[in-house]
Amino acid sequence: MHNLEPTIMLLGRSPDVLNALLRGLPDIWTTGNEGEGSWTPYDVVAHLIHAEYKNWIPRARCILEPDQSQPFPPFNREGNFEESRLKPLDLLLDEFARARANSLQELRAMDLLPGDMEKQGIHPALGTVTLGQLLATWAAHDLTHLHQISRVMAVQYKQAVGPWSKFLGVMQCAGHSAS
Amino acid sequence: MHNLEPTIMLLGRSPDVLNALLRGLPDIWTTGNEGEGSWTPYDVVAHLIHAEYKNWIPRARCILEPDQSQPFPPFNREGNFEESRLKPLDLLLDEFARARANSLQELRAMDLLPGDMEKQGIHPALGTVTLGQLLATWAAHDLTHLHQISRVMAVQYKQAVGPWSKFLGVMQCAGHSAS
Repeated sequence: MHNLEPTIMLLGRSPDVLNALLRGLPDIWTTGNEGEGSWTPYDVVAHLIHAEYKNWIPRARCILEPDQSQPFPPFNREGNFEESRLKPLDLLLDEFARARANSLQELRAMDLLPGDMEKQGIHPALGTVTLGQLLATWAAHDLTHLHQISRVMAVQYKQAVGPWSKFLGVMQCAGHSAS
Repeated sequence: MHNLEPTIMLLGRSPDVLNALLRGLPDIWTTGNEGEGSWTPYDVVAHLIHAEYKNWIPRARCILEPDQSQPFPPFNREGNFEESRLKPLDLLLDEFARARANSLQELRAMDLLPGDMEKQGIHPALGTVTLGQLLATWAAHDLTHLHQISRVMAVQYKQAVGPWSKFLGVMQCAGHSAS
């Protein structure tokens, strides 16, 4: 049975973590990526905003509906990239904080009971998933992107650290994402 | 030639990042590890404090000394673990913030010129390294441990996320550390 409280506590602080890490940093840290087609820390923040609007709460609502015959609507991980690129990072960080606060307010308003965590929905690629798994994934998704941002930032210093590179695990990390 | 300003800007914010991420979180997030002998987020903060006292600034001082015939004194990554385990995480976070502020004050007081970045010292395992590489590594070391903390935290939810695990790169990361 998923325990919601540690999940909510982690979700609530991610905007502050990204603010502390990224706001006001020089471009070398926020707009570098890991090669063609890979994301910058800026892109990750845009993606997190999009997931607030289109993924977590909409899917939770989907699971709580009586009819479970349809899979969740598909989620395009880069669905807002065109629109976001018009905004400076500071505005994206503000928007993420607002979006996350609204999501958590909506989550609390669902008044979920422990038994609700076992309710099921259909993920378009993964098949049957539970509400508890969805909410745990929301928190772990923040962490996978913090993991990614710290790696993308570190890679910008791969040459600068010289021989120390081999002692820094982050420099060896290739990302591991299945998608 | 290493450009010091982005390094200092990143180093200055790491205590705030760790505060935002860890202070006041339930134990599941701060005292879980990745198996026997591995570190918890708590342990990582203790290690970062120890490195402030015994690694970065002492080694920079070493490089700036006229005699470069001796390697840096060895650094024990877990040198303060026994002593730290008596302190709650909040005190360690406070101590890291103070230690980092003192280190950066001392770094600024060195009044380093661009040419100083090429000055050399002898690392006990890596051989000849430059001051620029040492200072870049200091920043990248913060990032490798943020990368580690986000991974250690995510691993605590490996079961809870169910089938989503394969979409979360962080769940596939084994750390990559050479030491």
